[in-house]
Amino acid sequence: MSLVELESHLSFGGQQKRFKHLSSTLDCEMTFSIYLPPNHETNAYPILYWLSGLTCTDENFSTKAGAQQCAAKLGIILVIPDTSPRGDSVANDPSYDLGQGAGFYINATQAPWQQHYHMFDYISQELPKLITQNFNTNGKQSIAGHSMGGHGALMLALRHPKTYCSASAFAPIVNPSQVPWGQKAFTAYLGKDATQWQQYDSCYLLQYYQEKQFPILIDQGTNDSFLSEQLKPDVLANIAKQKKWPLTLRLQAGYDHSYYFIASFIEEHLAFHAHHLNSEE
Amino acid sequence: MSLVELESHLSFGGQQKRFKHLSSTLDCEMTFSIYLPPNHETNAYPILYWLSGLTCTDENFSTKAGAQQCAAKLGIILVIPDTSPRGDSVANDPSYDLGQGAGFYINATQAPWQQHYHMFDYISQELPKLITQNFNTNGKQSIAGHSMGGHGALMLALRHPKTYCSASAFAPIVNPSQVPWGQKAFTAYLGKDATQWQQYDSCYLLQYYQEKQFPILIDQGTNDSFLSEQLKPDVLANIAKQKKWPLTLRLQAGYDHSYYFIASFIEEHLAFHAHHLNSEE
Repeated sequence: MSLVELESHLSFGGQQKRFKHLSSTLDCEMTFSIYLPPNHETNAYPILYWLSGLTCTDENFSTKAGAQQCAAKLGIILVIPDTSPRGDSVANDPSYDLGQGAGFYINATQAPWQQHYHMFDYISQELPKLITQNFNTNGKQSIAGHSMGGHGALMLALRHPKTYCSASAFAPIVNPSQVPWGQKAFTAYLGKDATQWQQYDSCYLLQYYQEKQFPILIDQGTNDSFLSEQLKPDVLANIAKQKKWPLTLRLQAGYDHSYYFIASFIEEHLAFHAHHLNSEE
Repeated sequence: MSLVELESHLSFGGQQKRFKHLSSTLDCEMTFSIYLPPNHETNAYPILYWLSGLTCTDENFSTKAGAQQCAAKLGIILVIPDTSPRGDSVANDPSYDLGQGAGFYINATQAPWQQHYHMFDYISQELPKLITQNFNTNGKQSIAGHSMGGHGALMLALRHPKTYCSASAFAPIVNPSQVPWGQKAFTAYLGKDATQWQQYDSCYLLQYYQEKQFPILIDQGTNDSFLSEQLKPDVLANIAKQKKWPLTLRLQAGYDHSYYFIASFIEEHLAFHAHHLNSEE
């Protein structure tokens, strides 16, 4: 699997890069962004995967979140994938919340999506292999995301108990089976049988989770226009409470759904992950 | 002069806002962005004007530079204007370095530009009045910018010795009369008589400056693809040296012309301005 470098910028003494590659899982060309801290050639750092929200590419987080300063200090590689398969030959939909830019980090089973929409396998299998083969890492991984990507981060961590040291999210869709964004996407990608949706729903997964617990941090702005209809983080927090799960939900007064919100707290998320990436045995 | 609020986001405890207003100087509707630190309603803070580069609007700096965290800590209001007059009725050019998005912070005298292209007066006269009337400030001002906006910041400060406590720039066009970007724009906006260009050329202005000196900080990436042909900060630095002017030019090894470069050093620029905004009598 070969990478083609599209961009490289010095950033806080490290490298902000962008690559494209042919994805066999998604059957199309994909791009991803990566931040490599100073001295990454000689120091093997852990990785934080960042999953972005609806309409985003791999560039929103790298240009807007201001995460590089803290990643440079803490020694964390940031890997930022795109949010769906892409290209003229890839199925799409005119709406912003289905098709390209809205992969929902699942493996689609329904036409016309099932050929390319396998973001679950891409993020958890193909991309980590590609990163490990091409960059110097210490093998430790955590995962974070925003909105649809917050759903992706929590869900992927709950599905892969031994893979991630910690998970965090900004304004995640925690219960996609029960909200309009998730119901629309899951019906299209997975069909009408809602039992097929459970494997991608963090609330369902947490309820029935039996493996080793891992720490979860969620930040949610109280002025987020999607909070009451699409996000509902308290549903997940209540399940966590019943299960005595180490989940911290912070309601951030006055913050909205934008990258200004993410930028304001990304340093605390990176510190949270650094603690668990570095303390894990 | 009334402001219409377009956006408002909580950011590091302060407010990142965007406004539109009718500009009498530019004879068109304009937008600007502003960052108001925490407690700006009760604390009167100083202002840093940020002038952006070619093709930018008022949004590039506010979304990509990561300046809000430091502005919140230091108590500095950031005012981020657009880079030219805008609109269907405003003269334009298909190239990226002339017309809308490329105002060069001058007052045009030539057709078809002279009706709207008065960014010099807009930035130094109309906008500061608008800000003072609508926001709580302590009256102290400094100015900074990038590339074309670095030219604007240095030039405007040299033209208004009593207005700004300090000036700084990332990769500024310091000698526009002698480089392709400046020659193209000045010929169009000001005509072929190059003596008319001198009033907007920082190298010329510094050479003949007789007023009270003010501190200047310039950061220039050594991997900037525009460095040798368009920017040439050493020309200004040499004049400063002859005049014993407090100008610091820092060559930042490996950095390019992008916002990743700006983000890496914006904290140091804000600290530089905070020092002079707060120590000025």
